[in-house]
Amino acid sequence: MAKSILSETPTFTYKEDSNYYNPEAFSELVVNRRSCRIYTDEKIPEDVVNKCLDLALLAPNSSNMQPWEFYWVRSEDKRKLLTSYCLNQNTVKTAAEMIVVVARRDTWKRNCKLMLEAFKQQEEKVPDSALLYYQKIAPLAYRQGFLGWFGLVKRIVLNTIALRKPMVRQPKSISDMRVWANKSTALACENLMLAFRAYGYDTCPIEGLDQRRVRRMLNLPYGKAEVCMAISVGKRGDSGIYGPRIRFNRELFVKEV
Amino acid sequence: MAKSILSETPTFTYKEDSNYYNPEAFSELVVNRRSCRIYTDEKIPEDVVNKCLDLALLAPNSSNMQPWEFYWVRSEDKRKLLTSYCLNQNTVKTAAEMIVVVARRDTWKRNCKLMLEAFKQQEEKVPDSALLYYQKIAPLAYRQGFLGWFGLVKRIVLNTIALRKPMVRQPKSISDMRVWANKSTALACENLMLAFRAYGYDTCPIEGLDQRRVRRMLNLPYGKAEVCMAISVGKRGDSGIYGPRIRFNRELFVKEV
Repeated sequence: MAKSILSETPTFTYKEDSNYYNPEAFSELVVNRRSCRIYTDEKIPEDVVNKCLDLALLAPNSSNMQPWEFYWVRSEDKRKLLTSYCLNQNTVKTAAEMIVVVARRDTWKRNCKLMLEAFKQQEEKVPDSALLYYQKIAPLAYRQGFLGWFGLVKRIVLNTIALRKPMVRQPKSISDMRVWANKSTALACENLMLAFRAYGYDTCPIEGLDQRRVRRMLNLPYGKAEVCMAISVGKRGDSGIYGPRIRFNRELFVKEV
Repeated sequence: MAKSILSETPTFTYKEDSNYYNPEAFSELVVNRRSCRIYTDEKIPEDVVNKCLDLALLAPNSSNMQPWEFYWVRSEDKRKLLTSYCLNQNTVKTAAEMIVVVARRDTWKRNCKLMLEAFKQQEEKVPDSALLYYQKIAPLAYRQGFLGWFGLVKRIVLNTIALRKPMVRQPKSISDMRVWANKSTALACENLMLAFRAYGYDTCPIEGLDQRRVRRMLNLPYGKAEVCMAISVGKRGDSGIYGPRIRFNRELFVKEV
């Protein structure tokens, strides 16, 4: 019953078709996206950055909880700090712009309420099961409690139920919540990087940074938010790509079962 | 010294330019991608699935460790099981194809070796610092030890060093390794979903599944691999999209600092 919005077939009148078909453009885009280590000193127009951020925000994400934040580091002071917090990597030193993408594992509370408000403004009646999901189920699913005590309780209850039938058992710990928030945030990061390439700019995702110092610089609350990755952006420099792309044998990664 | 490949400027002769510029095609693609809950019974040509998987494999990822696996569930038996493990959601029941995307936090060992082998086959001499990275630094960085004991040691050492200067302190726990593997894997998932849309098909990412049962079905080793998400694929049904896309105010997510 709890998950009925997913398994029942509601009778919506909403229609959204798509005739989009352009595999060549996307293949070429993906092939042309390379992580760039050295940029030229060319600036990026402000509206390009904003348009790319807008495309990032359209990424799919878990229960539409949009657990991401994008910090566009524009002040000179913070930029200098960020460069040192990224250990002075070339890709950061030479970047035209830096965006720190943050995964929030706490904003679901606010966002459940925002979903219910958004439902109220919709023309079509939202099914009760969808309202129930954001009123009761999602808060129950994401809540972990102080030091994860509530997650532990859920773990025991859900694993007991799951002895008899398939059951969603996650997120049941703070570690699960971290994975959860970073996963959706990474989907948005990929949109962002592809968007910049589509606009003629390159990027490099950076995980090699001083997580704690960046968190403090951005005033992120401890235990609730973490840097998913920083992304450098700029115009590809002459030797910006260090070497040919290396991918191991496909058979290691793609399996038909 | 350890990170010198990132901060020093090597003198590579390798050149890779890109004139790719097609913001319209990508914007349209992203706008047209919606999570689809009901598909028609149209089949997907095998080579389209394979081409989309190939594009997923080109996603950027942490230290090129490619910590992902894609299980294309083709057998009827497994498909039935998977549908029940996803609690019989419409998007799974009606999907033409199902792909379970797995995040591996253990394959970095193998892949460090594969990187070193790949370097050997390159025409251009690979800098010593890059070799050192895959020979020594990466194995040290990713190793966490039984129950995370080695991670705990790293945590103490790195936090001590970090008192004086910025320092990369992660991954320093099993939780960090889960986040790490899922993050790169999610980047590939976004490529995959966008690729299908580019080929005229829709997708839906599914996290609401019985993680343990799916893991067992795929024979994934406990403590080393986990389902990042399952992805349903198919031709959009008439009422496949349940409602207009909801995104909360941009100001909540985009911040200039």
